[in-house]
Amino acid sequence: MDRLEKQIALLIELDQLKSVLRRTRIKSADGRLENSGEHSWHVALMAVLMQEHANAPVDITRVMKMLLIHDVVEIDAGDTFVYDTAASKGQEEKEQKAAQRLFGMLPTEQGDELLALWNEFEAAQTGDAKYAKALDRLIPMLLNYHNNGQSWIENNVTRDQALTINKRIEFGSVTLWDKAKELIEEATEKGWLKL
Amino acid sequence: MDRLEKQIALLIELDQLKSVLRRTRIKSADGRLENSGEHSWHVALMAVLMQEHANAPVDITRVMKMLLIHDVVEIDAGDTFVYDTAASKGQEEKEQKAAQRLFGMLPTEQGDELLALWNEFEAAQTGDAKYAKALDRLIPMLLNYHNNGQSWIENNVTRDQALTINKRIEFGSVTLWDKAKELIEEATEKGWLKL
Repeated sequence: MDRLEKQIALLIELDQLKSVLRRTRIKSADGRLENSGEHSWHVALMAVLMQEHANAPVDITRVMKMLLIHDVVEIDAGDTFVYDTAASKGQEEKEQKAAQRLFGMLPTEQGDELLALWNEFEAAQTGDAKYAKALDRLIPMLLNYHNNGQSWIENNVTRDQALTINKRIEFGSVTLWDKAKELIEEATEKGWLKL
Repeated sequence: MDRLEKQIALLIELDQLKSVLRRTRIKSADGRLENSGEHSWHVALMAVLMQEHANAPVDITRVMKMLLIHDVVEIDAGDTFVYDTAASKGQEEKEQKAAQRLFGMLPTEQGDELLALWNEFEAAQTGDAKYAKALDRLIPMLLNYHNNGQSWIENNVTRDQALTINKRIEFGSVTLWDKAKELIEEATEKGWLKL
């Protein structure tokens, strides 16, 4: 199979990410759950909009690529709610397998490059990955906040959980973590996050 | 309003793109219509996967940014079906207004930069824009083809229309246009595109 056919096969396979549902709802008449495909678009664009708030200069090309691929493993492994720490345990192995299967569909050197980038995002050790991770944590908080705390209320999230789980935002952006804390306090006052 | 608040306001506004429906259906149990948010993710990732097939070397950063923002104007102007040439006439003005409104929500120099990139995509004159446009035309064809010609059948699209409307793919990538022609001929043989 030539290179283009392999690339097309992965592209078609990735269509399935549009059917992986998250816990956040979109603002619309039917208030349906957001899927991981449209989330990936939203957060990749967020990276462009908020680049200046990263703690250190980032390579925006690498950040966009990371965010475009960061959730594709959910096609095999499903989405894990960020506050569901029990479910997260077996998840890592499933996601690693999924990444190998999906990027393994590409020509070898191309698949290896994307797999490395996906692993870098997961490990969250480099500046680019820390910034990308910060956005991935902040965007559902912003959407929830502007949707009357919907996902926090539906899933009984507490203020302490929100502070603990999202604290890592500060590794990517102190500015965005300050904003997140502000949202958490306001959401607590409004009763959207439980004490 | 400070820079971050402006950027957040646009980010939240853009959530609406997830409710703009296209003519392509996703492959899933309910076979729902694709929305422009998830499409934007899919085509931006496609740009990464197929970069080597561009007629000339492209700046992948600019191409990804273009594709992440190319459809945001549909929040105000709606999606126009590529084969609906009558509907396309008044559309240009509506989209230009929408682009100015949306990117105008950002800090001035940041909004101007994205507006310029959006206009560059629309004009399709630079190498980066030609490649991005080619992908935007090819991806629904690939999805349709792998979904038994669904959108072509539902909308009575003919082989001639498909060849005429999509011919511009070759300005961005001769390789991808060759592939598109192959799909069109196969889809015609299968009866998905009318003669």
